[in-house]
Amino acid sequence: MKMLPLVALSVLLSLTPAFAVWPLPKQFTTGSTPLRLASGFSIKLSGIQNAPKDLTDAVTRTKGFLSKDKLQALVPDRGASSAATIKSAKTLKSLTLSLTSGSKVRSISDESIVDVESRSEGYTLTIPADGSDAVLKANSTLGLFRGLTTFGQLWYDWAGTTYTLQAPFSIVDAPAYPYRGFMLDTARNFFPVEDIKRTLDAMSWVKINTLHWHVVDSQSFPLVVPGFTELSTQGAYSSASVYSPSDVKEIVQYAAARGIDVMAEIDTPGHTSIIHKSHPEHVACFEASPWSQFANATTNFTASLLSAASSMFPSKLFSTGGDELNTNCYDKDAETQTELNEQGKTLEQALDTFTQASHAALKKAGKRAVVWQEMVLDHQVTLANDTVILVWISSADAASVAARGFKFIHAASDYFYLDCGGGGWVGANVLGNSWCDPFKTWQKSYSFNPTANLTAEQSKLVLGGQHLLWTEQSSPSNLDPVVWPRAASSAELFWSGPGGDVSKALPRLHDIAYRFIERGVNAIPLQPQWCALRAGACDLTA
Amino acid sequence: MKMLPLVALSVLLSLTPAFAVWPLPKQFTTGSTPLRLASGFSIKLSGIQNAPKDLTDAVTRTKGFLSKDKLQALVPDRGASSAATIKSAKTLKSLTLSLTSGSKVRSISDESIVDVESRSEGYTLTIPADGSDAVLKANSTLGLFRGLTTFGQLWYDWAGTTYTLQAPFSIVDAPAYPYRGFMLDTARNFFPVEDIKRTLDAMSWVKINTLHWHVVDSQSFPLVVPGFTELSTQGAYSSASVYSPSDVKEIVQYAAARGIDVMAEIDTPGHTSIIHKSHPEHVACFEASPWSQFANATTNFTASLLSAASSMFPSKLFSTGGDELNTNCYDKDAETQTELNEQGKTLEQALDTFTQASHAALKKAGKRAVVWQEMVLDHQVTLANDTVILVWISSADAASVAARGFKFIHAASDYFYLDCGGGGWVGANVLGNSWCDPFKTWQKSYSFNPTANLTAEQSKLVLGGQHLLWTEQSSPSNLDPVVWPRAASSAELFWSGPGGDVSKALPRLHDIAYRFIERGVNAIPLQPQWCALRAGACDLTA
Repeated sequence: MKMLPLVALSVLLSLTPAFAVWPLPKQFTTGSTPLRLASGFSIKLSGIQNAPKDLTDAVTRTKGFLSKDKLQALVPDRGASSAATIKSAKTLKSLTLSLTSGSKVRSISDESIVDVESRSEGYTLTIPADGSDAVLKANSTLGLFRGLTTFGQLWYDWAGTTYTLQAPFSIVDAPAYPYRGFMLDTARNFFPVEDIKRTLDAMSWVKINTLHWHVVDSQSFPLVVPGFTELSTQGAYSSASVYSPSDVKEIVQYAAARGIDVMAEIDTPGHTSIIHKSHPEHVACFEASPWSQFANATTNFTASLLSAASSMFPSKLFSTGGDELNTNCYDKDAETQTELNEQGKTLEQALDTFTQASHAALKKAGKRAVVWQEMVLDHQVTLANDTVILVWISSADAASVAARGFKFIHAASDYFYLDCGGGGWVGANVLGNSWCDPFKTWQKSYSFNPTANLTAEQSKLVLGGQHLLWTEQSSPSNLDPVVWPRAASSAELFWSGPGGDVSKALPRLHDIAYRFIERGVNAIPLQPQWCALRAGACDLTA
Repeated sequence: MKMLPLVALSVLLSLTPAFAVWPLPKQFTTGSTPLRLASGFSIKLSGIQNAPKDLTDAVTRTKGFLSKDKLQALVPDRGASSAATIKSAKTLKSLTLSLTSGSKVRSISDESIVDVESRSEGYTLTIPADGSDAVLKANSTLGLFRGLTTFGQLWYDWAGTTYTLQAPFSIVDAPAYPYRGFMLDTARNFFPVEDIKRTLDAMSWVKINTLHWHVVDSQSFPLVVPGFTELSTQGAYSSASVYSPSDVKEIVQYAAARGIDVMAEIDTPGHTSIIHKSHPEHVACFEASPWSQFANATTNFTASLLSAASSMFPSKLFSTGGDELNTNCYDKDAETQTELNEQGKTLEQALDTFTQASHAALKKAGKRAVVWQEMVLDHQVTLANDTVILVWISSADAASVAARGFKFIHAASDYFYLDCGGGGWVGANVLGNSWCDPFKTWQKSYSFNPTANLTAEQSKLVLGGQHLLWTEQSSPSNLDPVVWPRAASSAELFWSGPGGDVSKALPRLHDIAYRFIERGVNAIPLQPQWCALRAGACDLTA
């Protein structure tokens, strides 16, 4: 029911699949020689003493993908006309992994949680066309893991043979930005551990290195925090809808083994009304507009909660939130007013005390604080210089944050909010539109410029960016299709750097989406399969 | 990351779930007496000689839902505070089904395919509060099936007990409009039989009575038509991505047993380019803008194809499509021009000949033709008076179709297209917006007025309406979450009639969505669970 675009007939003839690595490596060359994996293809470790288990596990998973991904080339005949070529192709017998001399042997998990600004994710991968061994080198096991991920995206299946038509390969890769994240809200609606683990796998396939886990919010408190179990007992949707300390440990370890750091967030002082169920004494304006009071007891309670919660996560980064304070609520709340009068403080002064206490507790726990933009742009709170700011209201606010000299993460609603444009969740709304319409397409986020309106100096403050899923209208029912492959667009933007061309990217994005399906992640098709098999055939023509 | 709306605290206290039947019955009264199903609860048929198997199967499925749906009431405590009440409630031992005297005993399947304007779907359901037998009566087995569907939506689970707090029930029900459909496109991307069957189940749960199956299109031809198997052999995405005659039989029977008629569509003369693969002689402007020529041979080919294809479907309705003819292509196509000159015909005359031949073939096969709106609004073709028109371009076009005196189905892109607003599928489009932005919310379709700008006389021409899923960006990955519960909004609109209030509907829509999950259909949450458990608590307040 919509016109097909005009088609350049020429492109219909292409039988060579795209170089489908996603995100695109920093530097690479490919050839045009067919090569197939030997039936006994092996992945070897060379000179890596006491190889960490998470590295050997990653090797095993990679071999699993190589044999189980039955992805046929996305060309009209799916590879049929290359059958003879594939059959007679030279065979690759092994891939050898090694660390550059002098590199310490540490587990992927340990490398994944070092400070985001000094993480080592680069690698070099060489695959000769003559069948001689392929070589993967890096300065860290994390870099080797990124290289294995790339290796796993190079191959197609035809009649049980795993092949490429583009050998030799020479790849030198490293990320443009150190932070590449994905944010998941598990409070508006709950997500079982297996959904989070599946999402972590998918994230690792496109080299996303941080799960920003917005674990609790006003609507529910699913996190079981030792010493504060009443919060989840009374604040979770059900006794089954919780993340126990062992669940958290499982998620954190699963993530780290896949090169992903888990940055948790306990959003305060706003977005906390569910705490009212167990601690009415700490919450003002219950339901009307959740947030905490500023009584000293509340400040102390919050600081202790944050140190207890942060100790569950090995990451250096921990977010205290700080978005959407509702001063209107504050003005109306007698108890809060009394408190402030007794303390002889203004709201801003109380908020400063509150925030400093929270962040001091985090610092003591060895954490680096992360906050939403309002904490620097709308309030007068004292923040440590290394505080990381999340820009969310508008990408235009990045410049203001940069002007204050803080490092920041692009997480703007106008580019990266996955929930926008799907209808609003607020009731009694006859049109039902969402507050952040329209839908943010993969093309829009892919075309984002991380350094727009920044000086060269300010540009160094950009740590990276992420897509975000607020789950007012999401659950395990639509997690995969809402996120994938859209979130892959920011994964490439912040790994490969800006300036990508959506037309050139689409065939590779189809490829990663079809590969996700092979691996059990329900990515959606971005076009009719007819178009996915004919790169450029469904492009808009001027 | 978005403000919670203000809350009327009063509503937080409601512990009585909504009367959750969807679509809302024509007339009903409920009480406030608790009632639970007896452990040996039975559904009996009374005075129905040689009960059709599809009726006894429907009874079995209903009993399955009553025992397997573990849906707890959508109230803050999920029913906990009613535990004692539930335990001491009277028990309902049986539901008795009977046909009104003089009614013929025919199978649900036979009743489901009689002409849409004379189908009998009404029923009366009475459930006393004292535990005496519940009674379901109808003039047809199809009516009994609709009543069973309603019965299956009345109950909640608490600790293994199936109960209601709202007995007694007295329901007199019948649809406002005879046609309530859902359209699925299986050509842009392919859907296996099990996805279609799962969708048919979901459709039946909200009393949708027609699957408008847009089975083939320009991109692929998955339908295996006896005598024309070359079309699917060469036009399907793969040998596995086809609907064999036995697949079609299975789908048609599965649908009919669930009160659903399958109205298939072979879209001609446009949307046919894939036929070029096997029959280049019949297709002009291949790829550029698919459509058939008007050679006599093509006309005859199409007529034979339509009679062969239509014979696979027992429905009285069969759609020949007819949308989006591209005259620009026609003007450029030398072969078509030559043909027309030889025939001494204008395009419109040739199109008339073509359409009359197609429809004559359908009539001979005992079918009633269905076409998209262009056939009456944009072209001069002769159509039988009983031709059914699909209004799709804009709901505003309904009045023009009505002015020409044809019966029609509301299927307008501005209200009922499920694919809109999720980003566009056309490549090389930097913003990536869709042609029919914005996203069509359930609230928007729910608020649709089927008789806007129609006279009382013209209003009788409205057969009903439907949601539609064009699948450029859909596949099994997102079928359920894109369709449900949104498509339930048109199901209620056309069963219960217009004028519904979105605020009153939301709690019931939550209920059906949560019930869908219990039954294995991945409906999405429309709000945070916190809101779903507190009717009205998240409503926008002026």
